[in-house]
Amino acid sequence: MQRPPSDADWMAATIALARRGRSASAPNPNVGCMIVKDGRVVARGWTRPGGRPHAEAVALAAAGDAARGATAYVSLEPCAHASPRGPCCTDLLVAAGIARVVIATRDPDPRTDGAGIARLGAAGIEVETGLLEADARTAMAPWWTRQGEWRPFVTLKLATSLDGCIAMADGSSRWITGERARAHGHLERAGHQAILVGRGTLAADAPTLDVRLPGLEDRSPKRLVLTSGSAPVGWTAVASPAAVEGVDSLLVEGGAGAASAFLAADRVDRLLLYRAPILIGGGKPALGDIGLADLADAHGRWRLADTRLLGSDRLDVYERIRII
Amino acid sequence: MQRPPSDADWMAATIALARRGRSASAPNPNVGCMIVKDGRVVARGWTRPGGRPHAEAVALAAAGDAARGATAYVSLEPCAHASPRGPCCTDLLVAAGIARVVIATRDPDPRTDGAGIARLGAAGIEVETGLLEADARTAMAPWWTRQGEWRPFVTLKLATSLDGCIAMADGSSRWITGERARAHGHLERAGHQAILVGRGTLAADAPTLDVRLPGLEDRSPKRLVLTSGSAPVGWTAVASPAAVEGVDSLLVEGGAGAASAFLAADRVDRLLLYRAPILIGGGKPALGDIGLADLADAHGRWRLADTRLLGSDRLDVYERIRII
Repeated sequence: MQRPPSDADWMAATIALARRGRSASAPNPNVGCMIVKDGRVVARGWTRPGGRPHAEAVALAAAGDAARGATAYVSLEPCAHASPRGPCCTDLLVAAGIARVVIATRDPDPRTDGAGIARLGAAGIEVETGLLEADARTAMAPWWTRQGEWRPFVTLKLATSLDGCIAMADGSSRWITGERARAHGHLERAGHQAILVGRGTLAADAPTLDVRLPGLEDRSPKRLVLTSGSAPVGWTAVASPAAVEGVDSLLVEGGAGAASAFLAADRVDRLLLYRAPILIGGGKPALGDIGLADLADAHGRWRLADTRLLGSDRLDVYERIRII
Repeated sequence: MQRPPSDADWMAATIALARRGRSASAPNPNVGCMIVKDGRVVARGWTRPGGRPHAEAVALAAAGDAARGATAYVSLEPCAHASPRGPCCTDLLVAAGIARVVIATRDPDPRTDGAGIARLGAAGIEVETGLLEADARTAMAPWWTRQGEWRPFVTLKLATSLDGCIAMADGSSRWITGERARAHGHLERAGHQAILVGRGTLAADAPTLDVRLPGLEDRSPKRLVLTSGSAPVGWTAVASPAAVEGVDSLLVEGGAGAASAFLAADRVDRLLLYRAPILIGGGKPALGDIGLADLADAHGRWRLADTRLLGSDRLDVYERIRII
């Protein structure tokens, strides 16, 4: 017989639920919640698009009476502050008769930050905190980055030849990567609140910067252009990497100028490297100056998080090593 | 009970033997030979350094009387021409009483090319040809390339950052890749008859271009420099990629000028791409102009043959797609 699932197993599944809300839950964190009773899942929930209802409210509504005496796994400490947009989740958990709450990580929002845990404990609920904390923060990285640093979580996408070129010397770049890699790039667009390009890329590629995947056309993100000037209709001008506002997750699509500006400002959290098995030679490099003064300083900053083949192209996903 | 090994199994093992002689058998092909009798290996051989004795001679000497009635697996058609350096292998196989010979591929050398097969047949030996032919040619690729085109088999090594730079703008390149990747590069040196660098790399890195692996110091290859001028002591000047003579396997180590010259001449058969998880930005690109006129022409030329992690670096091995 298989061993029964552990708290860590349930929490891992809860964090996977949290990821489902990742691109749509803003301005609220993308939380997952799983209600478990007698070794079985009673109900599941994750933060709905726009941030409400919260994950706990979704799961408790689905569980109904079955929540009584059950354990609730949540990827983030339940909120303890009243809001005109809905009830606070600690009150909902208490009212539903939940016996035990397992929390991955505390909510850094000063209106909750420990207050949710305290209120649950005062109501006689058993509370455990800190299970798979790093995994939960990674799953919520866009929101977490914004919460902690008031800036968006930034993904930089580069599509290059094996020798690191993003175009031929004359600017031709159609196509370097193949269909599957480009479709994956569209999926990444759909997962971000906004995309950003430099002025040159806007002039060259503007018509193509939408989401072209069946069923995901309505997920096309906001469009930002990095420029000291004005932006065309449908676009928002951003003067510098530090000036992106009201966005949790940003995909920087190019070109080399925009990419380098974000890297020089250390505003890139995740790197998508699509690489085609071709050599260009003497083409346009992926990056310009990013302010590196010493080769030793370049090391220890990026960790390979994922790698896969997309047709004959390779995608490597790197994450910026930070303490969050 | 396991199924007994098939002819293809024995041949695969024979081709693996052939690879052992790959860097040292010049000017002769690196052949493997396995003598099998009653389902057991009686003896094995591969071409010795310098090209003699041949693989068949080595294996037959080890087999002695046990060769009588046995099957010989050979990766290349046994030679049929007399040489002052040794007996011809078809005569040796006949004299030893071999009953059956299985051959992966015919010898394109016009002195043999089918004559070995004919002589074996005339002596009453059962002969089969063409088993794992492509594998055998790949295992002998350096020799095969030279035999067919009278040029060396060329491997190009590039060690770059994720953005395709081989150095910072000021020329600093120590270190981009880590210890394990550099050790692997030394192993590749030991597997080639010669290495080649451009003039600039010679001036900057000459003292480091040896094999620094315990036990392999004596495998340091010949040293070539791509220059229209003269070469320093211990080095041989080569005026162009087409002018490399007397070498079966060549490792082009850098810099961008030498790499680009060999690629522009379509003389690169294998690409070693060591890539460190760092970004440099605005550094020295791996390649200059390689004569690419249209992006579409860049596709379909390289096939990923191997990929591995070496510490935090990645090695991708690409092979030029050719019909050999």
